[in-house]
Amino acid sequence: MAQSDKRRSILSAAVGVFARNGFYNSKVADIAREAGVADGTIYLYFKNKEDLLIQVFLDTMDTVLFEQETALRGITDPIERLRSIVRVHFAVVESRPALAEVITVELRQSSRFMRSTDLKPFGRYLSLMAKTIEQGKNTGQFAPEIDSRRTARALFGVMDELALEWAMVPDRHGIGEASDAIINLFLNGLRVRP
Amino acid sequence: MAQSDKRRSILSAAVGVFARNGFYNSKVADIAREAGVADGTIYLYFKNKEDLLIQVFLDTMDTVLFEQETALRGITDPIERLRSIVRVHFAVVESRPALAEVITVELRQSSRFMRSTDLKPFGRYLSLMAKTIEQGKNTGQFAPEIDSRRTARALFGVMDELALEWAMVPDRHGIGEASDAIINLFLNGLRVRP
Repeated sequence: MAQSDKRRSILSAAVGVFARNGFYNSKVADIAREAGVADGTIYLYFKNKEDLLIQVFLDTMDTVLFEQETALRGITDPIERLRSIVRVHFAVVESRPALAEVITVELRQSSRFMRSTDLKPFGRYLSLMAKTIEQGKNTGQFAPEIDSRRTARALFGVMDELALEWAMVPDRHGIGEASDAIINLFLNGLRVRP
Repeated sequence: MAQSDKRRSILSAAVGVFARNGFYNSKVADIAREAGVADGTIYLYFKNKEDLLIQVFLDTMDTVLFEQETALRGITDPIERLRSIVRVHFAVVESRPALAEVITVELRQSSRFMRSTDLKPFGRYLSLMAKTIEQGKNTGQFAPEIDSRRTARALFGVMDELALEWAMVPDRHGIGEASDAIINLFLNGLRVRP
């Protein structure tokens, strides 16, 4: 295996093990077994179990940001751009349930992660939303008094809570349809009152 | 100390220890020391560390639900009722930051908690919001196509994310003012379009 393939297969094994056993009860040895590598190999790529969790997050954010930016190409209307962001977010959640569970549930427990002020990819994700809201204010579609950054964070909260609910419920369907209803409500709220 | 006082002082010590060290790194012995009781005493009241975390949550929800219901007495307009719910939620977060941190951050990691289908107090909290939204549909103030339960969950997501952000940022102010802006946006979204 090439180095980058090995790294990727360890990360992918980690997602499975974390989702199945929870971060707390997962062992680096279990991840090694699932990835088909020796325990020691993991430490060539990652510092420890928490580093693995953080790298899962950083890799995921890179992929999702790339998918978001690709989907946004050619969409100029801020309302349609926000709709696209929410749809892509839920599409990622729906296509990778184990990953969604690790990100929404397990990641919150990592105090090193939660306290990090260097969460660049999460910051970029919020910025993508905040800039779109700002753009809607500039075009006069959204109310001028809206705080773009805080509203982006609120929108992330809605998406994260619905993703969490979906990841926890064994009966897994309907997150796409849910997302459309919620984004309509949110967009209504942003609009300038006539 | 009376039994109920002892139980309460153990729970209060647990909140402090969990907030400081994180659930993962907290030891029952630390909680016993902080509460001024012997290690064994804790096991008279609680099964284990996870049970302590869950009891912190259940006690908090009981208190918050009582505060919510008290504040709602005499308010009939559904818009004002929703506003009151958001304000009381943030007032609790603001007045008890360690508790807010334990609830938003540490609790998510408890898989026993997250998977429990018997989360009665959380269900009651969501119901309180869902019923208020339903009431607004009945009075014709909120749009008829709104899904009350899902929207209540989305509103909870907004409150939880803003509480999380606030609990994580060392510079602790402004959550009340933030809440007013966000609830206005949310209420705009719920309203019937003219």
